[in-house]
Amino acid sequence: MFLCLSVFVVYWLNKIKMRSYRKELWFDIKKRREFVNITPEIEHCLAESGIEEGLLLCNAMHITASVFINDDEPGLHNDLEVWLEGLAPEKPHSRYKHNSYEDNADAHLKRTVMGREVVVAITNSRLDFGPWEQIFYGEFDGKRKKRVLVKIIGE
Amino acid sequence: MFLCLSVFVVYWLNKIKMRSYRKELWFDIKKRREFVNITPEIEHCLAESGIEEGLLLCNAMHITASVFINDDEPGLHNDLEVWLEGLAPEKPHSRYKHNSYEDNADAHLKRTVMGREVVVAITNSRLDFGPWEQIFYGEFDGKRKKRVLVKIIGE
Amino acid sequence: MFLCLSVFVVYWLNKIKMRSYRKELWFDIKKRREFVNITPEIEHCLAESGIEEGLLLCNAMHITASVFINDDEPGLHNDLEVWLEGLAPEKPHSRYKHNSYEDNADAHLKRTVMGREVVVAITNSRLDFGPWEQIFYGEFDGKRKKRVLVKIIGE
Repeated sequence: MFLCLSVFVVYWLNKIKMRSYRKELWFDIKKRREFVNITPEIEHCLAESGIEEGLLLCNAMHITASVFINDDEPGLHNDLEVWLEGLAPEKPHSRYKHNSYEDNADAHLKRTVMGREVVVAITNSRLDFGPWEQIFYGEFDGKRKKRVLVKIIGE
Repeated sequence: MFLCLSVFVVYWLNKIKMRSYRKELWFDIKKRREFVNITPEIEHCLAESGIEEGLLLCNAMHITASVFINDDEPGLHNDLEVWLEGLAPEKPHSRYKHNSYEDNADAHLKRTVMGREVVVAITNSRLDFGPWEQIFYGEFDGKRKKRVLVKIIGE
Repeated sequence: MFLCLSVFVVYWLNKIKMRSYRKELWFDIKKRREFVNITPEIEHCLAESGIEEGLLLCNAMHITASVFINDDEPGLHNDLEVWLEGLAPEKPHSRYKHNSYEDNADAHLKRTVMGREVVVAITNSRLDFGPWEQIFYGEFDGKRKKRVLVKIIGE
């Protein structure tokens, strides 16, 4: 009976323990700017974590890239590219003070508009999404290796 | 004494268990664009959850709507409308490639500026807000049913 | 043996209990607009919390200020100031309806672009950051006392 309680306690302690999961996704985009649908990779992380209820954070680890949620429609992605280039033009590079060291000031501004991170609810082991929500990696200064962080906490 | 320990253990296990709560809020806005203060609904969700300490995620489940935090002042809401229409004009619809299928490309861009989600601290069973913070649903392509997700985790 | 189990249970209950931490950071910026690197203060909060794995929320408690993540480079901060003033000019104050009561409508818009909050993963008791990520307080209507909230949950 004493042993029985011990087993019960250990079983429940493991069951109710808050769990956390961490993974880095690597990218090496060949163009300066591109949007990549990373929803399948995020779903793979969630399955790997075994977490059923909680919150998922997905953020760019670099300050010239973005993680955002929108529609997976090529026309819209073209509109976003044109619109961002209007709000924060890449050239002439000399228009930005940051570009005395770099040529990517516009990428910092574009990522600011698009956002660094998304937080997604996890319900019944699934991304709790509306009908058209998809997660994208937004690259604004590519041709180099960059990372996205996936962190999940829950139970 | 053995029974006493068992009761104590079960009591504490329940007390320290991470809890989660989920609710959908439905909207059917009659105009194309509108801002709705949803703070009372979110406070109701929080009370219903019984969660005392944790994090609350509130996000639009649609990609042409936003959840954001700002001041509940009609003049400001008018300024936001004018400003967003300047940054991402609705018309002519033909200016956006996305609009070969739809007429709501501008709504995707406006929601990008306003943001998809807010994360709010829960402290002592309350939204841990500064003096003027209020949560709004921002509709940019209305005249249809849409949802907002409220997810709370904590204890 | 019975005592032994009790001690073991209490030890583990404390160990696996979800923990939460809350702190307010106060600012009194002398200029109307300024960016302040608050990464050291946030790291201090994290150390104080003792939380090893979890999520950290850091948000402005005022609707004319921002918390955001970017590069700590003065040229870039100058570019951000010029760019935001282009997207949402401060003057003439009369251009905004909100300014019948106030003169800070532009600050509400600038903070909307920069964002209210960041959510950061906590891994091994550290801010789980990429190489250049730094957290900034963005003031857009200064010369008064304002607060930032730091909330951490985890274990």
